[in-house]
Amino acid sequence: MTSSIASGSADRSGFVGAADIGATKTLVTVRAWPVEAWALGSSEVVRLATDRDPWRMVARLADELTRLAIAGGAVRGRLDAVGLAAPGPLDPTSGVIHHSPNLGWRDVPISGPLKRLLGVPIVLDDDARTGALGEARLGAGRGRATVAYVTLGSGVGGGIIMDGRLHRGAHNVAGEVGHLSVDPTGPRCGCGRRGCVEAFVGGSSLARRARGMWPSARTADGTPAPRDAAEVFRAARAGDPAAGALVDEAVEALGFAAIGAVLDPDLIVVGGSIGLSQRRFVRRAVTVGRQRCLAQTGRALTVVPAALGRESVLAGAAVTAWETLPASRREAL
Amino acid sequence: MTSSIASGSADRSGFVGAADIGATKTLVTVRAWPVEAWALGSSEVVRLATDRDPWRMVARLADELTRLAIAGGAVRGRLDAVGLAAPGPLDPTSGVIHHSPNLGWRDVPISGPLKRLLGVPIVLDDDARTGALGEARLGAGRGRATVAYVTLGSGVGGGIIMDGRLHRGAHNVAGEVGHLSVDPTGPRCGCGRRGCVEAFVGGSSLARRARGMWPSARTADGTPAPRDAAEVFRAARAGDPAAGALVDEAVEALGFAAIGAVLDPDLIVVGGSIGLSQRRFVRRAVTVGRQRCLAQTGRALTVVPAALGRESVLAGAAVTAWETLPASRREAL
Repeated sequence: MTSSIASGSADRSGFVGAADIGATKTLVTVRAWPVEAWALGSSEVVRLATDRDPWRMVARLADELTRLAIAGGAVRGRLDAVGLAAPGPLDPTSGVIHHSPNLGWRDVPISGPLKRLLGVPIVLDDDARTGALGEARLGAGRGRATVAYVTLGSGVGGGIIMDGRLHRGAHNVAGEVGHLSVDPTGPRCGCGRRGCVEAFVGGSSLARRARGMWPSARTADGTPAPRDAAEVFRAARAGDPAAGALVDEAVEALGFAAIGAVLDPDLIVVGGSIGLSQRRFVRRAVTVGRQRCLAQTGRALTVVPAALGRESVLAGAAVTAWETLPASRREAL
Repeated sequence: MTSSIASGSADRSGFVGAADIGATKTLVTVRAWPVEAWALGSSEVVRLATDRDPWRMVARLADELTRLAIAGGAVRGRLDAVGLAAPGPLDPTSGVIHHSPNLGWRDVPISGPLKRLLGVPIVLDDDARTGALGEARLGAGRGRATVAYVTLGSGVGGGIIMDGRLHRGAHNVAGEVGHLSVDPTGPRCGCGRRGCVEAFVGGSSLARRARGMWPSARTADGTPAPRDAAEVFRAARAGDPAAGALVDEAVEALGFAAIGAVLDPDLIVVGGSIGLSQRRFVRRAVTVGRQRCLAQTGRALTVVPAALGRESVLAGAAVTAWETLPASRREAL
């Protein structure tokens, strides 16, 4: 069984929409019920530029979701539910994005207007938590009891899934290891404190630190100075000692051991642009993580890349939408 | 309703036994069903010296449990189940204590012989996990969704409870923050690695470090040198700079922030001899923990002392025994 909306899927009983709203781009898709498998790189995934104006973005999302639903064979383009994922902090209950520095949005009650346009339930959740759900249910964590997901991108986030369900925690930030301060004398973090995991590992912070280290466009030996995280990792691999020191610090800071000690998960899934592309860096951090937790957990500490790659969050949003349907409707299939 | 076995309890339908087997002493009790409240300091709690010979200990446990059951009014002294808690590592499924350096026991299949003597189901679990269950169900964590329990005694252990149920993790060590290494250049830990939380905070390690710091019986100014953890804390309070440095390091090492970031619990409950007696030390560690995790978690990070004091583990063992009864029997009450 596949959940992609291939031809001939018009006999299915319904469709859900999903959107992963990122800082610069937004992924949108529509999938047929039940969302129990994920075809990667499907042609039904549409990429939009994220609009700085949230209301224009809502209108574009409604248009695109309706168009995809019609193309997929939904009667009058009608979806059953839509799952949205966005950078937090946000309130999943009220559907309000409180303040997303990455999006430049503040106090946007995104679910309400989209619901009025589409006439279906809209569920909103934090992108890290949604990515965790996507990987646990449809990706690398499938069938595992306890899965921790860590996303290493411009920022560092995460989420925890137990027995296929999201563990939100008391303040909806369980698994958010990005702002665990591992060195109170460390570099300043975007959150205002010092030495957070994100201040060492996050792409934005690595780029900022590189610009501080090489204020001019060239390093001492005349090669172009690293300007973003990927260039820092490349310079470190090429033997630049200053870039190497930044990467060494990031290896030390990344807290796989803390996740292992507190949660003893079956699996840690690593996603995000840095997590997916800097495999050697992640392997080094796993080695350090194993050395720093209890022997029996450490030896068994298993860290794998996100199986859904750049679509973990989108898949999680589709799962969220699918789960919001009444059980009666889901079972009618 | 009280679960203590007061006079007149003979009309109850049954009793469970519980034992907390510690390095030097073992607490034993018998409680009437259902185990839904815990009367602290009850006269039904008996203190035995822990025998170095596990088979003599099993015989003493059987005698004591039967005596308490008869005193409580159980027909022919018959219990319905017994919960045992012991220092690990152990296997809850097979009922074998693999190797407990604290007890001096190795590969003791304790549940089998006790079951043959008493003729009832015996359930064995790690004392840190059992203490977590006791506090979450009958103590400070009652009614809270996510509770982390940290025991600060001669060693450092812990456990995690979600919705009233133990989260064991993939290797039965979830919540065991004692062997999270926070400083790979730190002091040697009993586990063989360096800089574990236990190496900084555990009573045995603090005593060992104090003996290394003051090899003779007196400090430089002629006062008696600290010989155990309580004396290290006392010397620090009295202004001794070396003892103060040990306590400062312990404050820095204790990982409330890691628990907050990974789990976002409703509550962290602190037990164990150091946790219960060194309140100022725990408060300082909470302040550090709040500074080192995400603002919204940190501000709300709530750490409270174990409400059941020295009986958290015993209460948890009684809960474990009670839960092992068939639902039909539990509901018949």
